[in-house]
Amino acid sequence: MRALVYHGPGRKSWEDVPEPEIVADGDAVVRVDAVTICGTDLHILKGDVPAVTDGRILGHEAVGTVEAVGSGVRTVAPGDQVLVSCITACGTCRFCRESRYGQCLGGGGWILGHKIDGTQAEYVRVPFADTSVHPLPSGVPAQDVLMLADILPTGYEVGVLNGAVRPGDVVAVVGAGPIGLAAIMGARLFSPSHVVAIDLADSRLEAAKQFGADATVNNSRQDALAAVRDMTGGLGADVAIEAVGVPEAFELTVALARPGGRIANIGVHGAPAALHLEEQWIRDITITTGLVDTFSTPTLLRLVAGHQLDAGRFVTHHFALEEFPRAYEVFADAGRTGALKVVLTR
Amino acid sequence: MRALVYHGPGRKSWEDVPEPEIVADGDAVVRVDAVTICGTDLHILKGDVPAVTDGRILGHEAVGTVEAVGSGVRTVAPGDQVLVSCITACGTCRFCRESRYGQCLGGGGWILGHKIDGTQAEYVRVPFADTSVHPLPSGVPAQDVLMLADILPTGYEVGVLNGAVRPGDVVAVVGAGPIGLAAIMGARLFSPSHVVAIDLADSRLEAAKQFGADATVNNSRQDALAAVRDMTGGLGADVAIEAVGVPEAFELTVALARPGGRIANIGVHGAPAALHLEEQWIRDITITTGLVDTFSTPTLLRLVAGHQLDAGRFVTHHFALEEFPRAYEVFADAGRTGALKVVLTR
Repeated sequence: MRALVYHGPGRKSWEDVPEPEIVADGDAVVRVDAVTICGTDLHILKGDVPAVTDGRILGHEAVGTVEAVGSGVRTVAPGDQVLVSCITACGTCRFCRESRYGQCLGGGGWILGHKIDGTQAEYVRVPFADTSVHPLPSGVPAQDVLMLADILPTGYEVGVLNGAVRPGDVVAVVGAGPIGLAAIMGARLFSPSHVVAIDLADSRLEAAKQFGADATVNNSRQDALAAVRDMTGGLGADVAIEAVGVPEAFELTVALARPGGRIANIGVHGAPAALHLEEQWIRDITITTGLVDTFSTPTLLRLVAGHQLDAGRFVTHHFALEEFPRAYEVFADAGRTGALKVVLTR
Repeated sequence: MRALVYHGPGRKSWEDVPEPEIVADGDAVVRVDAVTICGTDLHILKGDVPAVTDGRILGHEAVGTVEAVGSGVRTVAPGDQVLVSCITACGTCRFCRESRYGQCLGGGGWILGHKIDGTQAEYVRVPFADTSVHPLPSGVPAQDVLMLADILPTGYEVGVLNGAVRPGDVVAVVGAGPIGLAAIMGARLFSPSHVVAIDLADSRLEAAKQFGADATVNNSRQDALAAVRDMTGGLGADVAIEAVGVPEAFELTVALARPGGRIANIGVHGAPAALHLEEQWIRDITITTGLVDTFSTPTLLRLVAGHQLDAGRFVTHHFALEEFPRAYEVFADAGRTGALKVVLTR
């Protein structure tokens, strides 16, 4: 089969590799029908994720059709259409029993396209299939469901739920890429009074408005802290969400929160940030970090099926699987191409 | 009257000053019967709290007798014995209505010995008396109640409740000074499986054992991170509490928490700390900071009255009011004197 293979920092190719096979009795082999590229894949290609080694097939998001299952798989069978989630879960360890699947101690967690071969291929082996894939709801396009493999639950769980957005809150989202947009979309479910998107690019801020931001700040030109304080009687945002992954963005996000405010970090970081405890020790703030657990995926699937979340809105570009190299170029150059999520289909 | 007056960094004196008077109709003037010194007062004397200016009477903890009240005071009257809390609360602003009295927007918060004259004097004016003093429970020594002016609610609210200690948790407390000991005492109310105290001084670790720590680590000699991981199957503490207020202690506290763990900062900090997001972004941690609100003070008073908390255990030294300069020396030299809390009485 063909797959997108990582060959060390800056090097990847769409090449021939052996097809995956059932290895453990909980495995499924899934034929990939639709797949996307994540910002995290770009981080990997920069060499930021050293656990990913030469020869690894990238990708942790797919919709596909079950091709084969191990003898222990009970809930899916060949021919079933499934969502392959970015998080694989053993289902039985301490953390899985607390729904903290991202921290799975039993060999799961974020493993696809990271510690084992991933979804950017014609076929993928998914361990622990019973607790790691989700049947597709009827009547929902595959490309919409694909947005639930990672970005929608990530924005929702790590941004909105960790940030504990409540009705009437002012929510500031720093970074209006796909994850920030997913956080904005998720935040609206809780009826905030204002969602403020902050970014350096007008094109992303324009997208943020379409996803539900009712105020935008371009912090290449405007002082975001002053702007948010102006909107909040000088206090700051109830919830501030970091969706970038660089120290400056995190430090801004912390500063944006009001006394008693909540700061939810979603960004994938490669360097430490300064935490200004000399200002913040007295301000009753709560900071959370997290890898998505995907416990919300069934709920989000229902919201998409019920037209309460427009997941398809993320999809800006379509490609065939064999166009993977070109799809990476378009996604990596999002500033110019306007790409949010690209979808590659068989 | 006589009072302990701050005269800029490093300078204080026990001197004659005018007696306080009722200024607003919510005020009480309280005769100070018992008063103590806080680690925060030492921070002020180092110049770490620039809001405290020359001429300020220090102190934010007292037990006393109401001497006079303004026309609007309804719940206390001259002759009543009261606890003067470190937090003064207007009782009506947005934050007071959420029990977040430490962040009071109506002129309260931590003001005594900070923004207005404090309790280290023969008399003190307490604004918003109805929502800022607590009647003394019967049968409890004044010096025990005095521990509820600051350290017990601070350790309990900012450490134990913010850290969300639960039965069976492993709780690591970094810093075994009075606040760390208060956190240990408070944590025991929730039946943790282990409380581990970490400090650089054996004398404080010895005290920690008496307050309920069942393991101690001297991190001048031992690797605290390795020790806590050894106790927790390699994972780390469920809850890690910072009770020091320096970057190294905060950074250690963050590292001690397990994936999904909770880090509660109590320390008063004067400098930023590094937050290692390159490690922590993926670990589902929660970090809280806070100034005490004292919403728990009535509950803690009941626990002290019912002998479920031994508040008197903190008191190591007694002085008369006129011995204030000597009491400061003994308290500041706690490493040598073994002082936890010093009590000065009329």
